[in-house]
Amino acid sequence: MGRTVGVIGGMGPAATVHFMGRVLALTPASADQDHVRLIVDSNGAVPDRNAAIRGEGASPAPVLAAMARGLERAGAELLVMPCNTAHAFAGAVRGATPLPFLHLVDLACDEALASGATQIGVLAADGCRQAGLYQRGLAARGAQARLCDDDDQRRFMALLYRIKAGDAGEAVRAGMLALARGLIDRGAETLVAGCTEVPLALKPGDLVVPLIDSLDALARATIAAAG
Amino acid sequence: MGRTVGVIGGMGPAATVHFMGRVLALTPASADQDHVRLIVDSNGAVPDRNAAIRGEGASPAPVLAAMARGLERAGAELLVMPCNTAHAFAGAVRGATPLPFLHLVDLACDEALASGATQIGVLAADGCRQAGLYQRGLAARGAQARLCDDDDQRRFMALLYRIKAGDAGEAVRAGMLALARGLIDRGAETLVAGCTEVPLALKPGDLVVPLIDSLDALARATIAAAG
Repeated sequence: MGRTVGVIGGMGPAATVHFMGRVLALTPASADQDHVRLIVDSNGAVPDRNAAIRGEGASPAPVLAAMARGLERAGAELLVMPCNTAHAFAGAVRGATPLPFLHLVDLACDEALASGATQIGVLAADGCRQAGLYQRGLAARGAQARLCDDDDQRRFMALLYRIKAGDAGEAVRAGMLALARGLIDRGAETLVAGCTEVPLALKPGDLVVPLIDSLDALARATIAAAG
Repeated sequence: MGRTVGVIGGMGPAATVHFMGRVLALTPASADQDHVRLIVDSNGAVPDRNAAIRGEGASPAPVLAAMARGLERAGAELLVMPCNTAHAFAGAVRGATPLPFLHLVDLACDEALASGATQIGVLAADGCRQAGLYQRGLAARGAQARLCDDDDQRRFMALLYRIKAGDAGEAVRAGMLALARGLIDRGAETLVAGCTEVPLALKPGDLVVPLIDSLDALARATIAAAG
């Protein structure tokens, strides 16, 4: 048996369930005993990350740190957090326990650069964009992030809320595809789905460049680190 | 905010993910903050329940009790266990902490009898059948359990292990449907999916009698008890 993974979850609850399903699906397993042990805190009451980054709400940092400590007490040996935007508060999570923390944005950046691309298009929510998570992560690796301009970002957020409400229909998919193509037209050689809702409306085969699913990058790293 | 629910999970891991998805889907919610807080221990390494009930393996009772205590330490205020067969060891879970425990089999029996039926067909794994969980639960309520005969039970277990390995395809679904129809032919007025894998291959609309999803019964009770 490998190491037990603590999952700081609930941002949103559906993304956490989706992440757990991806860990299962990506594990080569033929019996229950082959699966990674996950201890998951699915807590919908974490203060709104986007609002906090805009400076308009309570910081989620104390709640995220408390969740990390609770998972450690429950037996977690390493931690993950399946939400891109919440990584603006990764420092609070890292500081809360001595456990290793697998950083979703770093893992997605690594995967995006694995093909040799240096111009990386990123579809990310307002808070993730405003906090500069992918911009810094890519710059630290010698690459450059290409993000939506303000008009396209507004369109992106509107699509995101439609997906969160259960609509990943033709119009939403066409809208998401247009935003992705806009980033490719402006030089992106690889795209990152830097928000857990994007892969519900955009598939790797829809584009002429590779599409990195940040949640899948975390799921693969989780399986590898759990051992 | 309601009470935090501790989930003794991983039996199997897919059933736990499915249970979480059902709690989400059955919660009337418009924002992350409306959802029940779940702390989930998805532990695939719990000793095989069916083998233990046959007297051929280690008892899972100490591991289940330790998981219950870990969830209590992590902040759980009530406990659930989304696996029918594991309820042969419910006593060990109840004895491990002072927390309330929602009993899946009792809840499914209550739901099966709500329509007035007294002959209840139950699709359940070997251990659940051998431990007499539904037979006793239904008899205590003045009803009678109809279970698969030995040949059909062997077929049922073979289907179950295919679902656990990720195969809920056409052949598995057809096999499960044939077993359900066999119970109806022998007098069952209502059917209980008394194993968490069954609803992955059999849906209420597939049958001429009501199909009680034991996991949904637990999900509804979980949402109500969390408040």
